[in-house]
Amino acid sequence: MGLFLSLTVFALCAFITKIDKKGPPPNVIVIFADDMGYGDLGVFGHPTIQTPNLDRMANEGQKWTSFYVAASVCTPSRAGLLTGRLPIRSGMCSSKRRVLFPDSEGGLPASEITIAEALKKEKYKTACIGKWHLGHLKPYLPTNNGFDYYFGIPYSNDMDRLQVEGMNGRQVNMEPKSEYFNVPLMRNEDIIERPVDQTTITKRYTEETIKFINENKNGPFFIYLAHNLPHIPLFRSPEFEGKSKRGLYGDVIQEIDEGVGKIFEALRENGLEENTLVVFTTDNGPWLVYNEQGGSAGLLRDGKGATFEGGVRVPTIFSWKGKIKPDIISDMGSTLDLFPTISVITGAEFPKDRTMDGYDLSEVLFNGGESPRKAMVYYWGEEVYAYRLGDYKAHFKSRERVYINQKVKEHDTPLLYNLNIDPSEKYDVSEDHPDIIEKIKSEVEKHKTTVVPVENQLIKRKNK
Amino acid sequence: MGLFLSLTVFALCAFITKIDKKGPPPNVIVIFADDMGYGDLGVFGHPTIQTPNLDRMANEGQKWTSFYVAASVCTPSRAGLLTGRLPIRSGMCSSKRRVLFPDSEGGLPASEITIAEALKKEKYKTACIGKWHLGHLKPYLPTNNGFDYYFGIPYSNDMDRLQVEGMNGRQVNMEPKSEYFNVPLMRNEDIIERPVDQTTITKRYTEETIKFINENKNGPFFIYLAHNLPHIPLFRSPEFEGKSKRGLYGDVIQEIDEGVGKIFEALRENGLEENTLVVFTTDNGPWLVYNEQGGSAGLLRDGKGATFEGGVRVPTIFSWKGKIKPDIISDMGSTLDLFPTISVITGAEFPKDRTMDGYDLSEVLFNGGESPRKAMVYYWGEEVYAYRLGDYKAHFKSRERVYINQKVKEHDTPLLYNLNIDPSEKYDVSEDHPDIIEKIKSEVEKHKTTVVPVENQLIKRKNK
Repeated sequence: MGLFLSLTVFALCAFITKIDKKGPPPNVIVIFADDMGYGDLGVFGHPTIQTPNLDRMANEGQKWTSFYVAASVCTPSRAGLLTGRLPIRSGMCSSKRRVLFPDSEGGLPASEITIAEALKKEKYKTACIGKWHLGHLKPYLPTNNGFDYYFGIPYSNDMDRLQVEGMNGRQVNMEPKSEYFNVPLMRNEDIIERPVDQTTITKRYTEETIKFINENKNGPFFIYLAHNLPHIPLFRSPEFEGKSKRGLYGDVIQEIDEGVGKIFEALRENGLEENTLVVFTTDNGPWLVYNEQGGSAGLLRDGKGATFEGGVRVPTIFSWKGKIKPDIISDMGSTLDLFPTISVITGAEFPKDRTMDGYDLSEVLFNGGESPRKAMVYYWGEEVYAYRLGDYKAHFKSRERVYINQKVKEHDTPLLYNLNIDPSEKYDVSEDHPDIIEKIKSEVEKHKTTVVPVENQLIKRKNK
Repeated sequence: MGLFLSLTVFALCAFITKIDKKGPPPNVIVIFADDMGYGDLGVFGHPTIQTPNLDRMANEGQKWTSFYVAASVCTPSRAGLLTGRLPIRSGMCSSKRRVLFPDSEGGLPASEITIAEALKKEKYKTACIGKWHLGHLKPYLPTNNGFDYYFGIPYSNDMDRLQVEGMNGRQVNMEPKSEYFNVPLMRNEDIIERPVDQTTITKRYTEETIKFINENKNGPFFIYLAHNLPHIPLFRSPEFEGKSKRGLYGDVIQEIDEGVGKIFEALRENGLEENTLVVFTTDNGPWLVYNEQGGSAGLLRDGKGATFEGGVRVPTIFSWKGKIKPDIISDMGSTLDLFPTISVITGAEFPKDRTMDGYDLSEVLFNGGESPRKAMVYYWGEEVYAYRLGDYKAHFKSRERVYINQKVKEHDTPLLYNLNIDPSEKYDVSEDHPDIIEKIKSEVEKHKTTVVPVENQLIKRKNK
């Protein structure tokens, strides 16, 4: 691993001095949904999914409308969030195997520093509740990555799928029972239930979160609550059956939303609302190939797996009562920015011995104004498929509906979209702006020089 | 014209008794945009168009997410709103000429009763400000349809287009100057400016509205503010040039939004906010064929001209401080329901000698709960193309991207969508629900028996 001191680090140091060190260190909760689409919340425009708690969170906090994940699938997206580094730097992305599977032997390398590790040094109590998917073998578990406590399913809820007589794989996914998926539930490093009763998993994650808040109300604490849902197979508690007009998928989102409401209630009851940053976002776009059981990217093109906006732009909300300036931010942000932002607001140490890919967003959160993020790189596996610089995004390669095996398209003249004017990526303006394409190409080349080859973690598997 | 006493009228009578008659009669303002899409407001999910005033109106009032216009193009949609009757009943729709043109000789028949006429009887001061498009010859003007005052362009802002050397029609529309369109501006029955300076038209409509509020603050008043924009050609005041990240189209919407803010300010300054119902909606979906200069239907399919949801489902907000229960309503509503609803809240007489197509929504506005509207019929010209009954919509015929001359498709087995689960109309479920298709077919037949042939107003033209 090379040592790169990025501009980000300098920018960050400049900000750090401004932080008010009085008062107790703030708590941080990151709530991360799985495969929820850009258009699946009321406040992001869904007509029938009711999300009153997330809507309130957005109206009282900041709704970010151009917020990106580091990849359009689970494992690399999560690696990006927790390390503040593009997954290409940690070996956590691959075009051959896009995520970790139950037979995988790799995981997030010990050399990587997670947000939890940085906060633990500052005496934060840290919990990972929910989906991990950064390696399920012992060295890679949350408890070896800075988390004091882990409760959850270590990978996706559709893995360890059994053969069910008379049903094909798709049917098993779409007419699911918990027993069809031999998925483990873990507490710390032990499997405590297998197969998991998935019908109550969302509720149990919320309960565990609230329990951790109550037990650590004297703070500070960091909770990374990564729901396994609405990734298929879809499950919800009996009391949410038929609750949403949107059907099963809506029921699932509404149970997550109710959980968010309960978490805020717990913060209020403990007098912590004015000392807790809560972030809500999701790991990638909706899994469109599952039709009504997949979500909606709203006006964005395509979904999970793609480098079009529907795959990587995620509905994101920041909340911190009395601190965050209520606003809608259409400037860019990314889950890669959470690490630097959280470092700044907590005073935790920010890694200085490696290339970091995030920006501190705290100024925007507290005072509004321009986001420091001006660019986003879109990886598909280990390859750069697209790059956004300011308003413009160039696609060098693309795949659509990747889960029905759409082949890669190479764009000799890159497709170019002005995402602020044309968020749906419908009107290619490459002919009008060859200069912008050249500028973007040169940014991509610059970016590539910062990437150092590392061991790929996703292709390591048993008996191979 | 036959005399049909619909169920609606009975339902209405039941409600009327409940209305609190104390206090001054409420003012009513209906703000109607032109060709604005379902997805073009912040609160309906647009990422870069900033509409803080409409967002606030929605958050403090009711946002309706399944609200329909009576047709997917201007003239019939407007006839439906103002009469509370499907345009087929007034002869205001045609498959041959879908709207009125400068050479048209027809218009809204004198026998039709408009909301303004009903309110004028109750001593309301009534103003139509903006686009009329229900007949520009004298007998058909707003002043002959219940409005004390008219200020506006009597039809679309792209009409009376001149030949411009070196530019084709599309270029003239998309690189416009006011002088390319010899469109008249009228005050009452006089043309006062021709061609209109379109750059200031939105601002002037807002100013005229505020003037009328100030002059009639002792009320009651009814204002129908029908903006000509964002129908192409797009224009905005100099101070809005480059204001929106969304480009020209966004500038236009943001000027309309600022106007909404100013209207609320005028209501507050006059102490009228708690005695005024304000409704915001639009006449049909976005004109997609104009690319970046057209709007976005968000997650809905297709746009203006089509009977898919993107053509007819419109972003709608009701506001009345202290009266309306803040909520998001995903039950159905329609501009056809405005007449009965306004009748109930103002005590104005509701036409009882003819078939009306609306429902009183006041119970939902004041107390929440279920909407009385359970069905919607979708006309294309004089033909029923689709019908929604509860969750399900059946398409018997359809056209897509109608402005690029897509031919009609006849569906022997109607396409069937569950709109609550699948608002994007992607997953045909006709095979699973032949019973629902039969039920819908029988509702359509019942509906057709209520339609009496009348003279068509849209095909009447000079020298023909």
